[in-house]
Amino acid sequence: MPPSPLSSAPLRLRRIHGFFVNGGLRSLHGLPVEQRRFAQNGPLRAVDPNGDYVTGQMYVQAYLQAEPSHDVPIVLWHGGGMTGANWDATPDGRPGWLELLLHAGFDVYVCDAVERGRSGWSRWPEIYESAPLHRTLNEGWDMFRLGPADGYHSTAARRRAHAGQQFPQEAFDTFAAQWVPRWAGHEEITLAAYGALLQRLGRSIVVGHSQGGGFALEATRRWPQHVAAVAAIEPSGAPLPQQVPSVGQPLPPHLCMWGDFLSAHPIWVRYREAVDAYCAAVRASGVAVDLCDLPAEGVRGNSHFPMLDRNSDVVADRLLRGLHSLRQEPVR
Amino acid sequence: MPPSPLSSAPLRLRRIHGFFVNGGLRSLHGLPVEQRRFAQNGPLRAVDPNGDYVTGQMYVQAYLQAEPSHDVPIVLWHGGGMTGANWDATPDGRPGWLELLLHAGFDVYVCDAVERGRSGWSRWPEIYESAPLHRTLNEGWDMFRLGPADGYHSTAARRRAHAGQQFPQEAFDTFAAQWVPRWAGHEEITLAAYGALLQRLGRSIVVGHSQGGGFALEATRRWPQHVAAVAAIEPSGAPLPQQVPSVGQPLPPHLCMWGDFLSAHPIWVRYREAVDAYCAAVRASGVAVDLCDLPAEGVRGNSHFPMLDRNSDVVADRLLRGLHSLRQEPVR
Repeated sequence: MPPSPLSSAPLRLRRIHGFFVNGGLRSLHGLPVEQRRFAQNGPLRAVDPNGDYVTGQMYVQAYLQAEPSHDVPIVLWHGGGMTGANWDATPDGRPGWLELLLHAGFDVYVCDAVERGRSGWSRWPEIYESAPLHRTLNEGWDMFRLGPADGYHSTAARRRAHAGQQFPQEAFDTFAAQWVPRWAGHEEITLAAYGALLQRLGRSIVVGHSQGGGFALEATRRWPQHVAAVAAIEPSGAPLPQQVPSVGQPLPPHLCMWGDFLSAHPIWVRYREAVDAYCAAVRASGVAVDLCDLPAEGVRGNSHFPMLDRNSDVVADRLLRGLHSLRQEPVR
Repeated sequence: MPPSPLSSAPLRLRRIHGFFVNGGLRSLHGLPVEQRRFAQNGPLRAVDPNGDYVTGQMYVQAYLQAEPSHDVPIVLWHGGGMTGANWDATPDGRPGWLELLLHAGFDVYVCDAVERGRSGWSRWPEIYESAPLHRTLNEGWDMFRLGPADGYHSTAARRRAHAGQQFPQEAFDTFAAQWVPRWAGHEEITLAAYGALLQRLGRSIVVGHSQGGGFALEATRRWPQHVAAVAAIEPSGAPLPQQVPSVGQPLPPHLCMWGDFLSAHPIWVRYREAVDAYCAAVRASGVAVDLCDLPAEGVRGNSHFPMLDRNSDVVADRLLRGLHSLRQEPVR
């Protein structure tokens, strides 16, 4: 069995540091010079936007154990419109999966996907082609399966959630504080940075959520030699079944996890169908697949964000047991 | 004397977690609905931008010692166009001040200022009034005093730095990967979030760099009861001398630190004059002020980013000694 993620002993870390992968220079020319003011009581300054920019980079935060308990680290990839902040606490202030995984003895790498959080983002329309997308709380209430679309209200007390909801709905506004803008159509620049990280780390367990779960499945298909196991939590996409590699390095074990209330949200029924089809093809190719349907296992009421739900520790334990079993990992 | 920041013993932490301060709902209406595609192989979806958004929030990362050596934490505020990533490593991969301060036994809080990094940013022109500012490498080379404005070139090998430059200039592109867009004129929303954090923490040592140094001086003036000491590293602004409070809670001790090459960059001569005038007024009011001019102390070659320069550990040691002396802190 893996170590319990619920330990309260101090974390013993040899390093905490950040770094960037990927990114290259892009030069802009022919843009007008502006006059802007920057500092408190400071003067107007000419700002020339023409010149070089770094674009395509990804920020990674490394939390490295003094004495790791496992042979490979865990890499955490957040979902669309999110950042690494997803993992470092629940919105109601309980420990995030980052801390649980550190207590479980893993080295952990937390990513901010390209264009989000500390990875920064590039000018549009000059470098990025399209405008960013900003998610409303109204959409999140529905998309993240806290409640029906018409259950959202600006006043928290007047919101209507699904019965038995595990998300700490009183902290929904606090959760929405961590949403960041995103762009559509950036799959390839995002995957390129994820691939660069996997190659740098050598071999990792990849845990991705939502859009990051789709990226985790695709990155595993592209770079199976760098993935010891992949866990897609509520993935919002997957490769097509015919894309399961039939030659070369075999795929590592897969885990896919789903929360509750899918049937009330048609888009999630469609996403799940696509992921199920891919997982079935992976399993048919001879790879171990742990299909974890939490309600079917008796764990009810989870939203699209099981790592933030009230039972996030129970779900983390299920994840660790699943990974342990899939990898039949020797415990040190 | 404070503990050495150069220890290689494991860090012993009781918590690592993130949280958000401030932020409130803002509703938008009357915007057109768009059709956009999100997930890999996913369908087109209608995106309605009308609804509620959180704006004004700030992300904070807390690194809390199992056994802190000091009575107050250190809060780190980055500069303009930066994020908390400034503190968590140097661009050439040496430990950042975050690790050094943790090894020195402080609880540390790292902020991403409002609108930057994991704090996210809001739609413009609907919520923010103006367009963002993206900094070119060309401007950074000059503004950050790596070399003369005409010393920048897209090819790293052809760049001309100041003689004796301590910045790891071979890693300048890697450094530029962590620059993020910023907005002009957001001083008040930024300070409101910083003030909320200081009130939440009770009493802190505030270390701010560049624009964050200006915010640190202003926040200390506004909320002196919540600041045990303030260190402004290369502040790009300061309150006006006549704004030093003459009644109420006395100001805590101040430290201002400057690197090298100011005279080659007129804007920094002006910024320093403004800060010197404020510091002189603070000192005249009876408050202890440590004016650290690194070159005058024999520490030469520092850029605008002494925490990233090759001698970042020497500068951190000077900072800790200065704070220790200013506070005459009992060592546990």
